[in-house]
Amino acid sequence: MRHEFEPTHFHVTMGSHEPVLRVASGDTIATWCVDAGGHDRSFEQITEGGNPQTGPFYVEGAKPGDTLAVRLDRLSPNRHRGFTGTLVAPNVVDPWFASALPYDTAPDVDYWTLDLERGTARLESPPPGLESLPELPLDPMLGCFGVAPPRGQAISCATSGHYGGNMDYNGFREGVTVYFPVFVEGALLHVGDGHALQGDGEIVGTGIEVSFDVELTVRVLAGKEISWPRAEDEQYVMAVGNARPLDEAVQHATTELIRLLEQDYGLDTRASSVLLGQCIRYDIGNVYDPAYTVVAKLEKRLLA
Amino acid sequence: MRHEFEPTHFHVTMGSHEPVLRVASGDTIATWCVDAGGHDRSFEQITEGGNPQTGPFYVEGAKPGDTLAVRLDRLSPNRHRGFTGTLVAPNVVDPWFASALPYDTAPDVDYWTLDLERGTARLESPPPGLESLPELPLDPMLGCFGVAPPRGQAISCATSGHYGGNMDYNGFREGVTVYFPVFVEGALLHVGDGHALQGDGEIVGTGIEVSFDVELTVRVLAGKEISWPRAEDEQYVMAVGNARPLDEAVQHATTELIRLLEQDYGLDTRASSVLLGQCIRYDIGNVYDPAYTVVAKLEKRLLA
Amino acid sequence: MRHEFEPTHFHVTMGSHEPVLRVASGDTIATWCVDAGGHDRSFEQITEGGNPQTGPFYVEGAKPGDTLAVRLDRLSPNRHRGFTGTLVAPNVVDPWFASALPYDTAPDVDYWTLDLERGTARLESPPPGLESLPELPLDPMLGCFGVAPPRGQAISCATSGHYGGNMDYNGFREGVTVYFPVFVEGALLHVGDGHALQGDGEIVGTGIEVSFDVELTVRVLAGKEISWPRAEDEQYVMAVGNARPLDEAVQHATTELIRLLEQDYGLDTRASSVLLGQCIRYDIGNVYDPAYTVVAKLEKRLLA
Amino acid sequence: MRHEFEPTHFHVTMGSHEPVLRVASGDTIATWCVDAGGHDRSFEQITEGGNPQTGPFYVEGAKPGDTLAVRLDRLSPNRHRGFTGTLVAPNVVDPWFASALPYDTAPDVDYWTLDLERGTARLESPPPGLESLPELPLDPMLGCFGVAPPRGQAISCATSGHYGGNMDYNGFREGVTVYFPVFVEGALLHVGDGHALQGDGEIVGTGIEVSFDVELTVRVLAGKEISWPRAEDEQYVMAVGNARPLDEAVQHATTELIRLLEQDYGLDTRASSVLLGQCIRYDIGNVYDPAYTVVAKLEKRLLA
Repeated sequence: MRHEFEPTHFHVTMGSHEPVLRVASGDTIATWCVDAGGHDRSFEQITEGGNPQTGPFYVEGAKPGDTLAVRLDRLSPNRHRGFTGTLVAPNVVDPWFASALPYDTAPDVDYWTLDLERGTARLESPPPGLESLPELPLDPMLGCFGVAPPRGQAISCATSGHYGGNMDYNGFREGVTVYFPVFVEGALLHVGDGHALQGDGEIVGTGIEVSFDVELTVRVLAGKEISWPRAEDEQYVMAVGNARPLDEAVQHATTELIRLLEQDYGLDTRASSVLLGQCIRYDIGNVYDPAYTVVAKLEKRLLA
Repeated sequence: MRHEFEPTHFHVTMGSHEPVLRVASGDTIATWCVDAGGHDRSFEQITEGGNPQTGPFYVEGAKPGDTLAVRLDRLSPNRHRGFTGTLVAPNVVDPWFASALPYDTAPDVDYWTLDLERGTARLESPPPGLESLPELPLDPMLGCFGVAPPRGQAISCATSGHYGGNMDYNGFREGVTVYFPVFVEGALLHVGDGHALQGDGEIVGTGIEVSFDVELTVRVLAGKEISWPRAEDEQYVMAVGNARPLDEAVQHATTELIRLLEQDYGLDTRASSVLLGQCIRYDIGNVYDPAYTVVAKLEKRLLA
Repeated sequence: MRHEFEPTHFHVTMGSHEPVLRVASGDTIATWCVDAGGHDRSFEQITEGGNPQTGPFYVEGAKPGDTLAVRLDRLSPNRHRGFTGTLVAPNVVDPWFASALPYDTAPDVDYWTLDLERGTARLESPPPGLESLPELPLDPMLGCFGVAPPRGQAISCATSGHYGGNMDYNGFREGVTVYFPVFVEGALLHVGDGHALQGDGEIVGTGIEVSFDVELTVRVLAGKEISWPRAEDEQYVMAVGNARPLDEAVQHATTELIRLLEQDYGLDTRASSVLLGQCIRYDIGNVYDPAYTVVAKLEKRLLA
Repeated sequence: MRHEFEPTHFHVTMGSHEPVLRVASGDTIATWCVDAGGHDRSFEQITEGGNPQTGPFYVEGAKPGDTLAVRLDRLSPNRHRGFTGTLVAPNVVDPWFASALPYDTAPDVDYWTLDLERGTARLESPPPGLESLPELPLDPMLGCFGVAPPRGQAISCATSGHYGGNMDYNGFREGVTVYFPVFVEGALLHVGDGHALQGDGEIVGTGIEVSFDVELTVRVLAGKEISWPRAEDEQYVMAVGNARPLDEAVQHATTELIRLLEQDYGLDTRASSVLLGQCIRYDIGNVYDPAYTVVAKLEKRLLA
């Protein structure tokens, strides 16, 4: 079944908030999200900023110990203008270099004109040196989404954890299925923070921030227990680690990928080691948020 | 000019050792390297292990403050058998998971048969679960190479730094040009540690370790001062950071890429921020060695 | 005014929960806390474990942007038995060593008999080698306490942040005044997780866990804005950083101590640098919890 | 036997340099060191800076696999003036705060007048706010010392490792015995980098840097194999970890202290866990150098 949902309020925490809609496993939700700053498709701020979330959506039958699969059917920027941070974050450059970042002269944001038909972004006021920057092809992704965390927690949408959250990984694009561990009845899916484009690491603190039309299909995998978000596209299986420092995000992602290979493909740690040692790929989602994100992935053709 | 050089001894430190050959800027060196364990093309151990280096090569005219460009013209495994580590390293998994790694039952190494004509590797004795592992396509790379470090240092080939060293980055493949800061007269180029294939992070502590035939063309960029290794292929410009933790490797690589954009393309930090924020790519070289390696890179077409 | 408060329920998150008592600035609260596992003075489990908190206490007049001062007037273990973890955590030893920790043979907990009159702890069943371990002098401290975090968050008592939480610092003992930034009306003070003794770092994951009688005096410092918890005893001023990795906890604590010296003593960063460079002391609170804790401190006599 | 040794040249790497003196196990060496910048007792620069080392001293009979004990009999500043860095290092404050450090206006160094008779240091030109800074009591310590590293390495005196080096730990004061693993015949002891005083962490990049008269007694512990430097004074046994990040330094130090308890006191990991869990103390040596230093220690009276 396909639900069209029109949000009227938003949450800046992932938590056990009152569900806005109840859907069944297998259903599709078509809805929209404001941008990270709370601006809608008219670029009007309709809610406070901080990655406001649409939802949460209650998925019938989902209970702690299950997994919620979320297929990203459609991720479409729905307005013609987005914005980005204007300077690399001081934590991604050498400490000595950080003291030379031109905070006093840089503007607060850069604006980009989005050509949604051609799928490109054009910087509106290029700083000196970028006057001839070519248009950039869009690659829309969802920055912040996930389920309610356990123990009655409500956690700021600035950060991420086992439950998902603000992972800011540019591989969460249309066509990908993301898996979350379920911690509460109904899973309580939240979605928000669309980026029309984002480099690895989100090193200026943003992608091209824009409101989105979103379509998702949810599915409950009853009794399937996972520890961290996982994902899958046509080419790869993936496991996500959210933590500081990056080393710990690598540890979580690698360990979860090993668990995935055991659960889904029957490989023990010794067999996984052989395979991952020569074939694993790592992506850096973000090195900006309170928790960094690393994705460990493996080509599915190696698992035939 | 093209030099064919037959090594007779090897170094397990990068340092100001007696040069084995003097070459001019623009010259090509054709030589070979033992594998990480000191085995030659007959799989005979002819020198102590620890990434033994061929060289160092003295490049006429190179002096402190210059840059040495090293084009990897040819990287060819020269025997039909390689070996790999057999378990993921305990530092790349969750600490609690590390205690469950089956060190007591895993063999010391796995062997791979290399089909050099078809460019594939076949695991000789697959552990249970990997009996039908497909042949893996080779992607030869150089694990450990670089120049002599400053101040009379001689640093173990287990680790890496500003001068290069054991970076274990699978992007250092044939066709790539790598740039090193020059710290001593003649630069003193060392090369070794060929991998027929390696996953991101080198998480079992090795790639497919094998002896190599290597051909390199060196060039002195007089007066060009860089801080960390850089690299370039047809698609990307790259900057390398070698350090622990990964976060610091990211900082070094990002900072050096910003410097590269300033030096080579005239972009200031503000302009670089716009570009890198939405377009940077990070690769994880290794998360195993005493210094980890991260590569920050940007597509050249964005710099036209 | 002195309030005696008898708790009837407990919270395992720090959040904007319904206050259990409203007190005025300057008031004293005498109450008690269960231990980390939810056991009361009879060692009976009366609530689920996870550092259950007594409170929250609403302090009249406290509002966002203020500081709440909490003087730890009395911290008294109130039963004769406590327990500790039995093995060093795998994250505080070398990864290779972690794989050798004897998880399969170690008991779940060690019990200690507490002599509250003499102020000592005796290990009940010493493992081989510790048969003649002397009695250890108690040094009671509060492991987890703080105020409600901002934005409607409710955060697990396993971790810590700007708002305090599970800092597990053995310097939070009787006589110390701790300062918290206020994020919500009434501040909403939570207290729990008494340790009769704890080494630096809490490296077995616990102190000697025991229920406590606690007496606190609260005071609102209106308009005083701080970023991280601070503290003070007769000898030192202190600033707390809660984060992973330890390096980041050091950064937060050092930065907050510099702010403290500016706010309270009028020293700019240049003057602070001189003083701290030769006189700062760092304590490691915990290296076990999801956020580690570092305390930066300076002797008050240097500030006369 | 007591040797008086007058140095004529110095090394800025720890390595297998030509020994300047051969001594027997049990002998005492009385010598002097220039300061970190290469200045002697007349504050004249007589050698290039970078923690120049006196030595190396060849200790007869020491061979790889042994331990060298070095008792710091006397550490005396030998001139009346020292200098310090003037701003906290950008890596020990929050990245956002680093960008506000006043590099452009701060002087390069602060000078201190040392009253060697009274054992105090007085800041010569206090910045505003520190006009009434009391004299600081001296607490002389050795910043950089150790033995030659293995495999023919020569490693910059900026950093540290298994072999010792630039640990900058303010607990290495007179009366302490420090133990180093021996990697080469004769151990090859280097000593330098005296600090008249230093805060924890060496956060301005220096202690009060001054030339020193030094007296040391060396002893070979044949067949005793240790992995990291250890130390001992009247109150504590200590183990040192040198690495980045701090978390890894904690891991090395904790692991080595567990090994020490096993080797010297027969305690297995289970028994050590009980003891260290409630009684370990951590000191932060430095958070400035390329490798940070953490010391884990335990009171000897608990080991009676």
